[in-house]
Amino acid sequence: MPEPGAVEVAVEKFSGTVRKCQLDRVAIEEPLEIRLDYCADGKRVARSISVTMRTPGDDESLAVGFLLSEGILHARGDVREVRTCGPAVGPQKLRNVVRVELRENVAVDIKRLERHFYTTSSCGVCGKTSLEALATGSVAPLAENLLKISVAAIHGLPQRLRSAQAVFEETGGLHAAALFNATGELLALREDVGRHNAVDKLIGAEFLAGRIPLAERGILVSGRASFELMQKALMAGIALLAAVGAPSSLAVELAERYKMTLIGFLRDGRFNVYSGSWRLQE
Amino acid sequence: MPEPGAVEVAVEKFSGTVRKCQLDRVAIEEPLEIRLDYCADGKRVARSISVTMRTPGDDESLAVGFLLSEGILHARGDVREVRTCGPAVGPQKLRNVVRVELRENVAVDIKRLERHFYTTSSCGVCGKTSLEALATGSVAPLAENLLKISVAAIHGLPQRLRSAQAVFEETGGLHAAALFNATGELLALREDVGRHNAVDKLIGAEFLAGRIPLAERGILVSGRASFELMQKALMAGIALLAAVGAPSSLAVELAERYKMTLIGFLRDGRFNVYSGSWRLQE
Repeated sequence: MPEPGAVEVAVEKFSGTVRKCQLDRVAIEEPLEIRLDYCADGKRVARSISVTMRTPGDDESLAVGFLLSEGILHARGDVREVRTCGPAVGPQKLRNVVRVELRENVAVDIKRLERHFYTTSSCGVCGKTSLEALATGSVAPLAENLLKISVAAIHGLPQRLRSAQAVFEETGGLHAAALFNATGELLALREDVGRHNAVDKLIGAEFLAGRIPLAERGILVSGRASFELMQKALMAGIALLAAVGAPSSLAVELAERYKMTLIGFLRDGRFNVYSGSWRLQE
Repeated sequence: MPEPGAVEVAVEKFSGTVRKCQLDRVAIEEPLEIRLDYCADGKRVARSISVTMRTPGDDESLAVGFLLSEGILHARGDVREVRTCGPAVGPQKLRNVVRVELRENVAVDIKRLERHFYTTSSCGVCGKTSLEALATGSVAPLAENLLKISVAAIHGLPQRLRSAQAVFEETGGLHAAALFNATGELLALREDVGRHNAVDKLIGAEFLAGRIPLAERGILVSGRASFELMQKALMAGIALLAAVGAPSSLAVELAERYKMTLIGFLRDGRFNVYSGSWRLQE
């Protein structure tokens, strides 16, 4: 049974100068439009918020995870309904629109979305220092006593991720994000062509299950740790992010500012801690 | 002499349970705002178009490369001036705004940017098949007789990229994009925390030098091949994209539709051709 999330294509494989034709599978990438339906000044407003290139599946989770990361959603009760809509397109009959309908009493700070669609020239995000402007508004630093985890549990994460990754093994084309607990047990895994989508799907599913903030959880990502991924973890209340790859400067700055633990280069029995090493125990 | 594009941070390195503190370098990630200054209905309009998280450096190239990819710019003569502006922020005194001023006679199709900022709910990009809606409007398929290249030249590209990559070696945190010619010679290289930025910088520099379309050139990327990267190559007139990693389904579809050559998994003496193998010679 082939995994969903991948599709078969014809490929010519070269090894040195030897060429052979065969079928191979590649990760599916398709656009997803996120629409927000909310009340403003007593009227309902429907608005397209974002288009992201994603691997189909868990689209409702992706949409609410994205809106949580952006500070639009705060609690499960904010959402009246989430549903996939739009016409079925392409050979796979995919629906590429998700509509998130908020309850009447939920105020939407549309300025938060200005990072994603600028409509005036007056926005000065890049005229401030980036953390002040980009980040997370009134979000407080996370409590230092959240989530203690052993060094051994951290070392064990990459193998657990590899065992659980299905489509990656097949296509090599997907990023993975996994949620784990204080003993290093993997609780959930999502894969996507976009690493930010994999994280949105992961935290969006927890949001829909009413489990935000994810106070005693950590997140593992298969690639690098960017500012954007740290922000998503922070907005979900996750105190620890571990990446198989390298972190960026702004990921480190955000982790320090918000008392998060940031681990990079987690592989081959080694890892680096860039912030918050007090959460690690022998 | 340390490379620009990276910054020093304190890190705790774990190997098994052995912990040591040292300084390490991480790739810089900072926001860049792209502003477009153009004429509409006889009046000059200044508008923020996009914010991208990038590694500082070559910001003017990034901005025009992005606008070329989006179909806003077509020829060097469209641009009157490109300059970095905004206040100097942060410890590194970075300017995080680039202003691109167009000549009076350049018409801007602002609808093209709707992928990036939706302001109405009427946009139906995800209600069509993705290539029809997302792609590149009136762009014609590339000529099949563009760029013949030998299999041996393709095999030689990864080593040439590694030799040329500076910051990646140091931080492990940057994506690279390289321009090469029909004999496999590397002509230019850009690195960035965002792979799309690395490609924008590469083609933007060529644009500013008046060398678009890049008819006898190929592009090599260090990671995976997405729809977005294929679109950028197409808009620059580049007929071949080779990726060290996997392609996505939509990258393959775009390559086939526009008669581009798409190579994936280029490493260790092997590669896969997903489209346009007629450009390869023994």
